Amino acid sequence: MRSAGVLGATGYTGAVLLSILSRHPDIHLSLVTSNTHRGKKISDVFPHFRGKLETILDATDEDHRGACDVYFLCLPHGTASAKAAEIFDGKALIIDLSADFRFEDVTLYERHYMEHRAKELQAHAVYGLPEIHRARLAAAKLIGNPGCYPTSALLALFPLLKEGLVAGHVFVDSKSGVSGAGREARVANLFCEVAEGFRAYNVGVHRHEPEIQKEVAKVADAVVTFVPHLLPMNRGILTTVYGALKRQTSTEELLGLCRDTYAGSPFVRILDAGMYPDTRFVRHSNYCDIGLKAFEDGRFVLISAIDNLVKGASGQAVQNMNIALGLDETSGLDLLPQYP
Amino acid sequence: MRSAGVLGATGYTGAVLLSILSRHPDIHLSLVTSNTHRGKKISDVFPHFRGKLETILDATDEDHRGACDVYFLCLPHGTASAKAAEIFDGKALIIDLSADFRFEDVTLYERHYMEHRAKELQAHAVYGLPEIHRARLAAAKLIGNPGCYPTSALLALFPLLKEGLVAGHVFVDSKSGVSGAGREARVANLFCEVAEGFRAYNVGVHRHEPEIQKEVAKVADAVVTFVPHLLPMNRGILTTVYGALKRQTSTEELLGLCRDTYAGSPFVRILDAGMYPDTRFVRHSNYCDIGLKAFEDGRFVLISAIDNLVKGASGQAVQNMNIALGLDETSGLDLLPQYP
Amino acid sequence: MRSAGVLGATGYTGAVLLSILSRHPDIHLSLVTSNTHRGKKISDVFPHFRGKLETILDATDEDHRGACDVYFLCLPHGTASAKAAEIFDGKALIIDLSADFRFEDVTLYERHYMEHRAKELQAHAVYGLPEIHRARLAAAKLIGNPGCYPTSALLALFPLLKEGLVAGHVFVDSKSGVSGAGREARVANLFCEVAEGFRAYNVGVHRHEPEIQKEVAKVADAVVTFVPHLLPMNRGILTTVYGALKRQTSTEELLGLCRDTYAGSPFVRILDAGMYPDTRFVRHSNYCDIGLKAFEDGRFVLISAIDNLVKGASGQAVQNMNIALGLDETSGLDLLPQYP
Amino acid sequence: MRSAGVLGATGYTGAVLLSILSRHPDIHLSLVTSNTHRGKKISDVFPHFRGKLETILDATDEDHRGACDVYFLCLPHGTASAKAAEIFDGKALIIDLSADFRFEDVTLYERHYMEHRAKELQAHAVYGLPEIHRARLAAAKLIGNPGCYPTSALLALFPLLKEGLVAGHVFVDSKSGVSGAGREARVANLFCEVAEGFRAYNVGVHRHEPEIQKEVAKVADAVVTFVPHLLPMNRGILTTVYGALKRQTSTEELLGLCRDTYAGSPFVRILDAGMYPDTRFVRHSNYCDIGLKAFEDGRFVLISAIDNLVKGASGQAVQNMNIALGLDETSGLDLLPQYP
Repeated sequence: MRSAGVLGATGYTGAVLLSILSRHPDIHLSLVTSNTHRGKKISDVFPHFRGKLETILDATDEDHRGACDVYFLCLPHGTASAKAAEIFDGKALIIDLSADFRFEDVTLYERHYMEHRAKELQAHAVYGLPEIHRARLAAAKLIGNPGCYPTSALLALFPLLKEGLVAGHVFVDSKSGVSGAGREARVANLFCEVAEGFRAYNVGVHRHEPEIQKEVAKVADAVVTFVPHLLPMNRGILTTVYGALKRQTSTEELLGLCRDTYAGSPFVRILDAGMYPDTRFVRHSNYCDIGLKAFEDGRFVLISAIDNLVKGASGQAVQNMNIALGLDETSGLDLLPQYP
Repeated sequence: MRSAGVLGATGYTGAVLLSILSRHPDIHLSLVTSNTHRGKKISDVFPHFRGKLETILDATDEDHRGACDVYFLCLPHGTASAKAAEIFDGKALIIDLSADFRFEDVTLYERHYMEHRAKELQAHAVYGLPEIHRARLAAAKLIGNPGCYPTSALLALFPLLKEGLVAGHVFVDSKSGVSGAGREARVANLFCEVAEGFRAYNVGVHRHEPEIQKEVAKVADAVVTFVPHLLPMNRGILTTVYGALKRQTSTEELLGLCRDTYAGSPFVRILDAGMYPDTRFVRHSNYCDIGLKAFEDGRFVLISAIDNLVKGASGQAVQNMNIALGLDETSGLDLLPQYP
Repeated sequence: MRSAGVLGATGYTGAVLLSILSRHPDIHLSLVTSNTHRGKKISDVFPHFRGKLETILDATDEDHRGACDVYFLCLPHGTASAKAAEIFDGKALIIDLSADFRFEDVTLYERHYMEHRAKELQAHAVYGLPEIHRARLAAAKLIGNPGCYPTSALLALFPLLKEGLVAGHVFVDSKSGVSGAGREARVANLFCEVAEGFRAYNVGVHRHEPEIQKEVAKVADAVVTFVPHLLPMNRGILTTVYGALKRQTSTEELLGLCRDTYAGSPFVRILDAGMYPDTRFVRHSNYCDIGLKAFEDGRFVLISAIDNLVKGASGQAVQNMNIALGLDETSGLDLLPQYP
Repeated sequence: MRSAGVLGATGYTGAVLLSILSRHPDIHLSLVTSNTHRGKKISDVFPHFRGKLETILDATDEDHRGACDVYFLCLPHGTASAKAAEIFDGKALIIDLSADFRFEDVTLYERHYMEHRAKELQAHAVYGLPEIHRARLAAAKLIGNPGCYPTSALLALFPLLKEGLVAGHVFVDSKSGVSGAGREARVANLFCEVAEGFRAYNVGVHRHEPEIQKEVAKVADAVVTFVPHLLPMNRGILTTVYGALKRQTSTEELLGLCRDTYAGSPFVRILDAGMYPDTRFVRHSNYCDIGLKAFEDGRFVLISAIDNLVKGASGQAVQNMNIALGLDETSGLDLLPQYP
């Protein structure tokens, strides 16, 4: 049993992380924090936990060094890296769900976010997309957990990219449920501003675009256009990717390539030809479902679906933890999708 | 390990039942049937099960006598009792999720449903509301699993009823998510006929009213008015009950009474004074949350929330099975509510 | 043509009021204000008005005395009465959509809201429920526009109350779409806190209860219990009222009584026996649909549906204006319900 | 006043068409038909029309030749063309909302739909996208009303296409509310199969793709990939189009081109740079909102929003009628978007 702490636990990723960790067979949840709600029981903030999880919330701002074997940081960008700098000792594992350690190139981070508050740690950080960087994660002590959109886009694109099939422009059209926007009180996320509506936002300027682009650039020479949209629903991301291949191929060949690529990846499900993902079939699970179609003239369409709070955030964080701690990759993550 | 069969598995209660049973530590799911989809894999009908549950569907209409230790009937009223008559041998446990075995008085059933197709079995049947009839369920071989609305109404009312506090009229105002209406193709349940709308239906003539009334009559002399409403959401029932007490009391006294009544019932959570249930906090779990308020002049308001497909159907069915098989009542049912 | 001003126009009632007034054949919209957005075009705040309504927003806090023939106050409780005191001159018509002038008894207002900021004006105020107080509204210069819940409850109850049929306890179970909570940034109204959930709130302590009760008390001796619930949808209130009659009657008799009561009321539609309202069939209109059922033993169920932003707020405000200005009651309000 | 008939009026396009025509200042609604509901009042099928529209439904299958000045066919593909062949006399105007007269090339129609049942009439038919074919529509007696997806895609693309700016592949990612799927009872469109989910369907094989492609081919040499998705909401289509331009340009230049192209088109609104459409801001109106972004390297993103039942179907049908009858193009269509 390892002891785990969740710092900044009262947002949506915190809620899902607590839910997973409280059931994890190898984990003891020993620290849960929130500055806003310090002193309350977690079940006072999240009443669904009543009778199941009643831990008292510590303040995030206290000194928690040496308290846990693994720390999950569910803190704002900037705050997370400062906390990581405080905690990091090369022994405890830190998994940061903010963007602070996602960029190998600190300059790129600073262009899109803010001044980096723990530059010296970046060299220790591994980008936590297990299906692509599993080997490096096994030895990691600091993991930058990927953004939800990049997870969905990169898992769909990676097999084609690494095979050198993709040329030129790649258009990534993503649609996310509202929980991706977090639990802050903002007019734009009120029920009446979202329900019965659909819109694109941050067109061509979303901060997940450079995250996708820098991962793409590691394996291929392709330019990514990324447009996120807001779905009138709680959870789920569906990403549709369009582009053209360097050579002719078939739907079956590409599906085979995907199956081979993810043969050792328990959370990726490749659908049969003619089948496409629905976010409803991955909800509340750590699965990423992928379907695709290749056209005779080289055009392709890739579609992936994840639960943005699980595979797009907290589930993936636990998957990364499992790998870094040498546990079974699926430990605590055997979550069946919930339908209807 | 006991072997279980789910007959008529391709509706919503079937989906949830398969989800629970496939994880149940004491159960081996050996039979899953559907006349419509016979020969297909269950994951072809319910793609969320891909990679997790790929059982081939048998025909419901075949002879399944002696095949399982426990049978769950997710079949239409009338079809269920006929199937029960075929299977019943006094050894295997039958849990019927239809209304066929909910009425001790066959005449009452026939007034509200249809001619009963297995009258001779009714004497064996126990009404499967464990919090009220736990003792009798322990020896049962045939269980009539309660309706979703009656479960929510009776659990809220029972403590007051059994204490002899309730007099005269009781008004039960229930609101249910759409999954309660099943998975049949009907115009009234199309997305565009439900979303952004709210309506009452079957006002004073819903078949769950006599089911509530006959249970109430076992302990008290009260007349129930029941009005169900359709909520624009997938899952959940919230029931608000109004009435007047025979004597003055307080919110705290009534809450204490509820806590005492359900002290040995792991799935009932009594909220603190001033707190009221939200269906979101029981979603995907077997919990029934109850809150209430007593007014100085004797009026009272009771509010209960359940997931209609879990505590209101499949979860309760498994809870009944656990009791009848002598297993721990919570076995396989340690489902955390899912939020957001 | 009369000139109209909308003060505090950037909430949901403001949006709907502007939409109606901009089409009203007898009204020129000459003043639209918002302190937060002063200087912007209204179409910058509400992009759906692009090309249709591009008025520049004035500050609410400026002196607008003598500027308009009719003023609509869409301001917070307390702020509205202070503004009314500033503007009121016995000539211009003031319609206040806050609660400030709904209570003839200032003490009652102060018990549930705050210190009243224009006590001296209360004697001039008329409660703006036209179907009940039409005659007095014709001469009004200051109208307290009713709350959304009271509108739905009182229109359903009034025919029975005034006929002296209702005795004892009346239980009012109301369900409202989220727009009733306004457009302020609050966690409780975020999409992810509302969608796929349902809850009661302010049980027995909602401020609309004394408003309903004081109107009921004008015609009958009945005690109202009021429980509001939050529906996962944008617009619409459905209210279900339960109680017992003083004498036996029939559904048809009660429906006839309702039809007689509202014979001269163009916005109330009484449904046939066996039919019940759906909020979807009044959406975006000023209608109140009413259905009911009487039981042989005297119990009754009344159900009413309105659009909370139209008949429950802005549409009713315009209806009140029409009456007070001597215009046709339906002028500018010939809004067809929108379906689907 | 012209007399109008709506044949097959009890689907969603029928409901919206009746709503518009019943308010149209130049139209008398003289014929409304439905085979299923013949003999009923239209308000029995659509209760929102109670008190407003109570026309008795005729049978669609009767002979309605010579009965009206203009006929709207809201009938299934194939049925519509057969009815058109029966009615067409070169005098009355026929507007067909099915796909039967959308394809100049009957062979193309037959490849994607079925054997054409009125080939001889196709030469008379004009494709009813007024912003592109307004001149030809003025003299039309038979109009093929466009599909909802093609309307949204073509209006966004047309300015760039006609200017010769678009080269090679164009990727059209469309998202539609559920009302686009019609009012037939189908499991796939049940509330519980749609809410809280999102999926692509008919990837690369949707019948609106050849419709888009054949219109694109009239002005440019571009290959269209079309992927529709199903949104968990009632109304609205948002279409995001991706591609690369033949030469460098700027967002402002493209917006200017759009403004010029649609200068005489009252229902197209071009947004400012940095602003993008939301289906909520066109709901219940005949508007098409368009926003876009050009990247320095030639990539572009176009986004358009319509109400699928108005500009995507019934509103556009009335707009076509107005043009063909020589009325003001906006007559009866001055519908404000409804928010929230």
